[in-house]
Amino acid sequence: MSTIPAQGDSSHPPLRIGIAGLGTVGASTVSIVHAMHALLAARAGRPITITAVSARDAKKDRGISLKGVRWENDPIALARAEDVDVVVELIGGSEGTAKALCEEAIANKKHVVTANKALIAEHGLALVRAAEHNGVDIRFEAAVTGAIPIVQAVREGLAANTMQRVVGIMNGTCNFMLTAMEKSGSPFNEILKQAQELGYAEADPSFDIDGVDTAHKLAILASIAFGTELDFAGVHIEGIRDLTPDDIQFAKTLGYRIKLLGIAQTTEHGIEQRVHPCLIEEEQPMARIPAEYNAVETHGEQAGKMFFEGKGAGGDATASAVIADIIATARGGYYHAFGTPSHALKPADTIAFDSLYGNYYVRLVVVDRPGVLSAISNIFYKEDISVKSCIQHSHSPGEAVPIVIITHNAQVSAMRTALAHIQAMDFILEEPHMIRIENL
Amino acid sequence: MSTIPAQGDSSHPPLRIGIAGLGTVGASTVSIVHAMHALLAARAGRPITITAVSARDAKKDRGISLKGVRWENDPIALARAEDVDVVVELIGGSEGTAKALCEEAIANKKHVVTANKALIAEHGLALVRAAEHNGVDIRFEAAVTGAIPIVQAVREGLAANTMQRVVGIMNGTCNFMLTAMEKSGSPFNEILKQAQELGYAEADPSFDIDGVDTAHKLAILASIAFGTELDFAGVHIEGIRDLTPDDIQFAKTLGYRIKLLGIAQTTEHGIEQRVHPCLIEEEQPMARIPAEYNAVETHGEQAGKMFFEGKGAGGDATASAVIADIIATARGGYYHAFGTPSHALKPADTIAFDSLYGNYYVRLVVVDRPGVLSAISNIFYKEDISVKSCIQHSHSPGEAVPIVIITHNAQVSAMRTALAHIQAMDFILEEPHMIRIENL
Repeated sequence: MSTIPAQGDSSHPPLRIGIAGLGTVGASTVSIVHAMHALLAARAGRPITITAVSARDAKKDRGISLKGVRWENDPIALARAEDVDVVVELIGGSEGTAKALCEEAIANKKHVVTANKALIAEHGLALVRAAEHNGVDIRFEAAVTGAIPIVQAVREGLAANTMQRVVGIMNGTCNFMLTAMEKSGSPFNEILKQAQELGYAEADPSFDIDGVDTAHKLAILASIAFGTELDFAGVHIEGIRDLTPDDIQFAKTLGYRIKLLGIAQTTEHGIEQRVHPCLIEEEQPMARIPAEYNAVETHGEQAGKMFFEGKGAGGDATASAVIADIIATARGGYYHAFGTPSHALKPADTIAFDSLYGNYYVRLVVVDRPGVLSAISNIFYKEDISVKSCIQHSHSPGEAVPIVIITHNAQVSAMRTALAHIQAMDFILEEPHMIRIENL
Repeated sequence: MSTIPAQGDSSHPPLRIGIAGLGTVGASTVSIVHAMHALLAARAGRPITITAVSARDAKKDRGISLKGVRWENDPIALARAEDVDVVVELIGGSEGTAKALCEEAIANKKHVVTANKALIAEHGLALVRAAEHNGVDIRFEAAVTGAIPIVQAVREGLAANTMQRVVGIMNGTCNFMLTAMEKSGSPFNEILKQAQELGYAEADPSFDIDGVDTAHKLAILASIAFGTELDFAGVHIEGIRDLTPDDIQFAKTLGYRIKLLGIAQTTEHGIEQRVHPCLIEEEQPMARIPAEYNAVETHGEQAGKMFFEGKGAGGDATASAVIADIIATARGGYYHAFGTPSHALKPADTIAFDSLYGNYYVRLVVVDRPGVLSAISNIFYKEDISVKSCIQHSHSPGEAVPIVIITHNAQVSAMRTALAHIQAMDFILEEPHMIRIENL
């Protein structure tokens, strides 16, 4: 490698790409590459040409022209084609065709660009090792928070930082639903149905609403930020299914909003990786991220706090990140997907969630009768949990009333033990529910 | 250029840098490069070694070790040294030594990394042309909004976008002062004195408070975003000296905050480039950027709105961007400072500010007597300016009272003519003052 880069121009031979998957992102990618051809060539140093595509249904009208583009029924053919330099994988899923395609592309010394968070979070290290071995690049900017160039920012823009923390709203479906629950006061299932009708949630929404999608993105960012091996299995994951309109209302009364956050940070004992709903102070920028937007806050020892916000999904927005990766591939230069050669990554040493500490919001529904609060307080006291405040939201002897408790800093395992004891009490009418209060 | 990048590692020969200027940013750069040596080598693909430095006073204690680093009394010697690959220019100023050093470095086929916004805004195109001619890179991430990797984001992360707009709070001094004026209600000169005592404003603060520094940064970002030649001379510049505590208070009453923004956007007639105080809605993220932070909002046709916030100044934060550039230089690859080869940049065709349209806030101080409002309305009417609302903030016949007028969309030239006519009226006690209302 020379320190003097090639000052090529668009008279260089084209970078030939093959796109697998023509959903909204794939169709947008084709459309933008064609519409912005001259500008992209000037920015990439060479023309970018779509040689071949592959998708399930060759006859479907996607509103794009595929004139002069070869159609392959089998996406794996793209990985083997002589006239493809970069395979763009937009199929999705951590296993099956998407994985086989990326492996085969790398085996055939083709670069890979993918928007597939599940694949990278679960098999990224093996793929990167294979890519390093074969001297090709694998890039996945679009896999994390759509259009926001956060992978590049953390890997390159903040390369002179000892990264301490990355926190983000990384799933537009959850953020849309929580925003809607806050505005309407409607229960989770009703909002989910609306989100599905509006196209903000999929028919099977579990990856989004159960936090798995956020965890995929978090694991990828954590690896780049901390120089640790991917540890998706180590991410603690909770989703938003258990949140009630009451939780959102109580949080609001206390000056908080509820957001599903992905949080990764370094500590002296290892790294934390967790995805769960959080109460965050309503003045925090993160509390105000609207509907389908995503945001990431980074803390670097040198750069301090930094905040990035943008569209987390959508055809053109995600294609913006996919094409940025294609251009980066064209530009070349020394590159490692996780910021350093994979052999230099340290084991993640993710700390068990149960051993972490935090402040908690606890919602109980109890029979309103004398002695209840004293019994609850006693259980917290025995588990060494200090109660900061306690609000009983009505007074109707003999009836069901909600009690909200805010704790001081407490260990998760102690919180769980306390809640199990509380749940066994005869005055408890619903399963106790706890949500972490996150200080950003 | 090969599409298969070199997969080098830290066993490669070091990238040897020479640093000119050892103020807070220079000292932080030396300190971080030494402290993070191994990690930076893994990220850059080769060790980064400081071979030589130059600053005014060799005896000054800067709290850093310069053991094994050669001291040059003349910074130009760095540009000629056999053992320097990259000259890091941290002297500042658009002319004199900084300019001579960068020119000489490029002439000697050395890469340049600089934090110098004035130099790049005023001479960047000539420097980039010389660098292209000699096959070296010139990088200036630290010149725009300190630690925020906005230059890279716009040039690379958003490379698949037709950029429509960049708007930002790009000067920490002004933002600190406006935040302080808002909190304290104290007048401009008092706040300036405080800012100088706290180190947020320089002894000669004119570049900051008169908007020149923001204009430098805006011109650089506009060139990259729109693919146009730098046109610093075309930037309309107003500073914050004329803002009064009354303005800030009236704005607040109306639901706005006042910020100094740099705004560049494309229109069918050319590009707009302007720096001036703005009233922005208090719910906008831009309205809440605290004290010394900077923020930039970008609008791309494909990616939509995106928002970046971070530290705009400070030794370590700025050094974070300087070192990111050094690492990028080490990594190599196809690179053009403004996103495309300089010959592909279009002329800027900046539109004259007077011909632009906008909504305006106007503050008048008048003698409270019958007929005043009618006379003012008549002047606006004659200039084809439609008044949206008008607030007279007290009623004390014969005394001085402020009047605040909010206009509908009006041309700047018409606003200026109207204000000149109004100023000539005998009931006017202070120079009329107008501030644009900016819809983000």
